[in-house]
Amino acid sequence: MRMKCIVAYDGTNYNGYQIQPNVMSIQEEIETVLTKIHGGSRIQIYASGRTDKGVHAKGQVFHFDTSLKLPTQAWIKAMNAQLPSDILILDVTVVADDFHARYDAVAKQYSYWIYTAPVLDVFRRNYELHYTYPLDFIKMEEALSYFCGTYDFTSFCSARTNQLDCVRTIYRFEMQRELENRFCFVVSGNGFLYNMVRIMVGTILDIGRGRFQPNDVLSMLAGCDRTLAGMTAPAHGLYLDFVTYENDK
Amino acid sequence: MRMKCIVAYDGTNYNGYQIQPNVMSIQEEIETVLTKIHGGSRIQIYASGRTDKGVHAKGQVFHFDTSLKLPTQAWIKAMNAQLPSDILILDVTVVADDFHARYDAVAKQYSYWIYTAPVLDVFRRNYELHYTYPLDFIKMEEALSYFCGTYDFTSFCSARTNQLDCVRTIYRFEMQRELENRFCFVVSGNGFLYNMVRIMVGTILDIGRGRFQPNDVLSMLAGCDRTLAGMTAPAHGLYLDFVTYENDK
Repeated sequence: MRMKCIVAYDGTNYNGYQIQPNVMSIQEEIETVLTKIHGGSRIQIYASGRTDKGVHAKGQVFHFDTSLKLPTQAWIKAMNAQLPSDILILDVTVVADDFHARYDAVAKQYSYWIYTAPVLDVFRRNYELHYTYPLDFIKMEEALSYFCGTYDFTSFCSARTNQLDCVRTIYRFEMQRELENRFCFVVSGNGFLYNMVRIMVGTILDIGRGRFQPNDVLSMLAGCDRTLAGMTAPAHGLYLDFVTYENDK
Repeated sequence: MRMKCIVAYDGTNYNGYQIQPNVMSIQEEIETVLTKIHGGSRIQIYASGRTDKGVHAKGQVFHFDTSLKLPTQAWIKAMNAQLPSDILILDVTVVADDFHARYDAVAKQYSYWIYTAPVLDVFRRNYELHYTYPLDFIKMEEALSYFCGTYDFTSFCSARTNQLDCVRTIYRFEMQRELENRFCFVVSGNGFLYNMVRIMVGTILDIGRGRFQPNDVLSMLAGCDRTLAGMTAPAHGLYLDFVTYENDK
């Protein structure tokens, strides 16, 4: 039986989602717990994609196969009882045997949170970027619009990638102002390259502080060269909000 | 020269404010940095009071003596550059040589944050109490009023105290509703006993869920016995907001 799980995690204390030798990862924590629940039979999980060291998730999705038959609430309870407090299973459902958390994903939404007050909020230091340069929000709004559509995003992908096809579609890229010197970028698309959201956000912030003009985004996209775009925004402001699948309402 | 400092800290990773052998404390982190700044001459700091393991501060106050003459901004920069990211100096000022952060404090304000949604917010797990029992806010409002005034708070003090005089004055005790299933208690008084805020909050939550009636607070106060009051609320929802001194506006 194949199970689809939705998980939230605080990425602060992990070296990213993916298992790597000698460091903590979200995947390893979850696989260890599932393996225990299965009496020691090794369980592997397959996520919608990796998240980097320090990046958070409000709705990452993964699947795994099991022969255990437990009700949804029992799965959630059993897993959360053994997982560390910074990883929280939100939902577990039975899915078709050919469901794949990565290959069947049709869209993802990320958000990136920024705090602009002069003094750091020490309680949010791992959960939002503290950015104190004055920002031109009108220019940033304009820049966002140039990213929407289908483009080759090579310029907005870490040079440390082995991805051959860098064409992706951004459906929506918005800025939401919040109270108390906070705002966030919300972006959804059919897929994202390595560091793509962080480079887009970094570039938009560079535009906001005047290092580039909004329509420079067009030549950055056309140039297909990482060195044309702006900085890579730090990991700790970034959240994978949710992943959409074809059968989702 | 005597310096008065205001400091914010995230208490999550510390064993409380006060220096103790073999564990991390806020005091030790700050004294270590100040001693370095003074070229190795041991500097001691004196705070307005201790905070427990896991308790946070938005405006703890301490003082220390120095022969160094630095402008305010230089002090702040020098200390924050060497302090860990969960301790943040907010202000440094020169005060009279007989100022004492503890003995001259005339009032303190604490707040206690609570989250009532069914599912934990993983990003706030160390910063607010997740409390899912249904609460009667009208009864809690009534209970708050019984605490205001001058009383012997023995029933609301940890039995592990050596305090002889347990009479304190509560000036104000309020509940503030926030968006998204959050609320907080805000309490100010001329001083607080060991665990006093946490026991008052725990008792009010017990009243909110029906374990006690609001006016039971009166007999709890009169009885001068810790076993009469309710639970001690967990540390991680509690914040020392600020400390007031006679010369403050």
